[in-house]
Amino acid sequence: MTDGFALSCPIPDPGGDIIELAHGGGGLLMHRLIDRMIRPGFGLPEDGVAHDGAVFEVGSARLAFTTDSYVVRPLFFPGGDIGSLAVNGTVNDLAMCGAQPLYLSVGLILEEGLPIAQLQRVVASMRKAADAAGVRLVTGDTKVVERGKGDGVYINTAGVGAVRSGVALEPRRVRPGDAVLLSGDIGRHGIAVMAAREGFGFEGDIASDCAPLAATVMRLIDVGIELHCLRDPTRGGLATTLVEIAQAGGVVIRIDESSIAISEPVRGACELLGLDPLYVANEGRFVAFVPQHAAETALAVLRGGPAGASAAIIGRVEASGRAVLLDGMIGGTRALDMLSGEQLPRIC
Amino acid sequence: MTDGFALSCPIPDPGGDIIELAHGGGGLLMHRLIDRMIRPGFGLPEDGVAHDGAVFEVGSARLAFTTDSYVVRPLFFPGGDIGSLAVNGTVNDLAMCGAQPLYLSVGLILEEGLPIAQLQRVVASMRKAADAAGVRLVTGDTKVVERGKGDGVYINTAGVGAVRSGVALEPRRVRPGDAVLLSGDIGRHGIAVMAAREGFGFEGDIASDCAPLAATVMRLIDVGIELHCLRDPTRGGLATTLVEIAQAGGVVIRIDESSIAISEPVRGACELLGLDPLYVANEGRFVAFVPQHAAETALAVLRGGPAGASAAIIGRVEASGRAVLLDGMIGGTRALDMLSGEQLPRIC
Repeated sequence: MTDGFALSCPIPDPGGDIIELAHGGGGLLMHRLIDRMIRPGFGLPEDGVAHDGAVFEVGSARLAFTTDSYVVRPLFFPGGDIGSLAVNGTVNDLAMCGAQPLYLSVGLILEEGLPIAQLQRVVASMRKAADAAGVRLVTGDTKVVERGKGDGVYINTAGVGAVRSGVALEPRRVRPGDAVLLSGDIGRHGIAVMAAREGFGFEGDIASDCAPLAATVMRLIDVGIELHCLRDPTRGGLATTLVEIAQAGGVVIRIDESSIAISEPVRGACELLGLDPLYVANEGRFVAFVPQHAAETALAVLRGGPAGASAAIIGRVEASGRAVLLDGMIGGTRALDMLSGEQLPRIC
Repeated sequence: MTDGFALSCPIPDPGGDIIELAHGGGGLLMHRLIDRMIRPGFGLPEDGVAHDGAVFEVGSARLAFTTDSYVVRPLFFPGGDIGSLAVNGTVNDLAMCGAQPLYLSVGLILEEGLPIAQLQRVVASMRKAADAAGVRLVTGDTKVVERGKGDGVYINTAGVGAVRSGVALEPRRVRPGDAVLLSGDIGRHGIAVMAAREGFGFEGDIASDCAPLAATVMRLIDVGIELHCLRDPTRGGLATTLVEIAQAGGVVIRIDESSIAISEPVRGACELLGLDPLYVANEGRFVAFVPQHAAETALAVLRGGPAGASAAIIGRVEASGRAVLLDGMIGGTRALDMLSGEQLPRIC
């Protein structure tokens, strides 16, 4: 997931006078808010590099540090819940920094009236997800707000991980000639949450892809692949993630639409709902930029990951620039933009 | 601030079926929820030690890691705002672990309709507080929820700090003979927030004590004081904090009420409102347990801290046990309990 404070694109408009839902949608308006107000307000460079987390050294340790709040609605959906999402999301942000996730903090904001049995279910889910990802929930905080000032449970997790030696992942390291890999099929999380929220009939067929990605990333590092950049395409979907990397890395990325795996149920749901799957959120997928010569080896590793055979090489980096070009399945090429407005609020 | 997941006391009742405001109040009900459900749910020992954060080693670095969410209402109050609170609160939790605070993450949960100018004011306040405390805001996340699902801004901060070599602070290290020091007068934060919320006339006279405590703690360490336990008495106030330490440390603490500094305006406001200042929240004060022979040196350091001359030696640890005894100003001794119910919701 793109760190909310760490992406830049050159947009003149500050994004309005009041907060709208789209300011949290992962698209254009969110980037405007962050780049033109929050980052400068915190004294961070306005033209900062897109990151999933901060990397710094303490003593001999090179650490990654990241945070995300989770406000998904409904709390429970096929394939996951706010608890597994809150663990896996932060585990994955650490993994995208090339770090082995180690420790997580948990901040709970509970709404008065929440059944304690629901909280218990969320806590159990966090424990299970943490065990599966090999991280420890070590510190936390609990706050309660009045009825009508929250929505059941909001969860913040922050994570600390140990960055693997010699690994430096950022869009600026992406270069012409790199292969672009995608670890699996797209669109499952967004459609699963929307279906659960709206009570659509295809709910049972589509489960969120919510999963920990750290083991797969560590394997890529262990087999010696020279990784340039990793990113999980959550809010804003695959298209927005690729545009972020193209803009921050100063490159033109060319994608072959036919190579992007989309399951039949997701494709059908998107057609029914008028959604472009390229902009639908994912929670257990990532894109990897690697040198062309390492692409096949990396692909073999990805096919051993959570999404298995649907992992694919989906394109390449062509030149300096700031664009994403999509070669369509039925011919023609179009430039992709970031998500504009918001497709589905509170997806994570 | 006491870490919400890290305190234990032997209470049979699980705390009800639904979340009540008191579950976030810092008192008895919060401890029941955490000890009987959240900690066991996360696989942490139910009889864990009270902590303000987790301490672990990565490579050669000994790190402290802590988190808190901030839901204070109103957002702005005399002496601070949700932004300065969110920075200082986490800085202070790291300091209570004996750690030099280094890096903070920021998770923002914004309510649709929030004026961006208000957010800007909060961001500027966080920056100023971070600069004053010598920490860096390095990573973050922004979410937006619909109108009526939040309350302007909720902020989570997590923090990473470097634990000073040779320092290990926990209630179990408190022992009979220790002196109990308090870094300043009590009750300012709770009264300032309540006054701002309710529009009481004494608002202007009482400002929150919200302040960073790390520099004072580092000075205590640097002058060579053998620190046994530090704790900042936030939610639940000084009384609850002392009871937590007595229970977790297995000691009897005797406090001399006349040595506890309370400003005249705070005392007057408490009388007017029927509040016991011992249970009113603080944000820039801490208690320190040190060997008797180091008490005067420690006191001199505390008097150089934010609260200056109001720092005092307020008592001593007498024996093994699990109680806090208060010798009253007008004679008589009473045992203190934790805050029961909740005095003032959303104080931090």
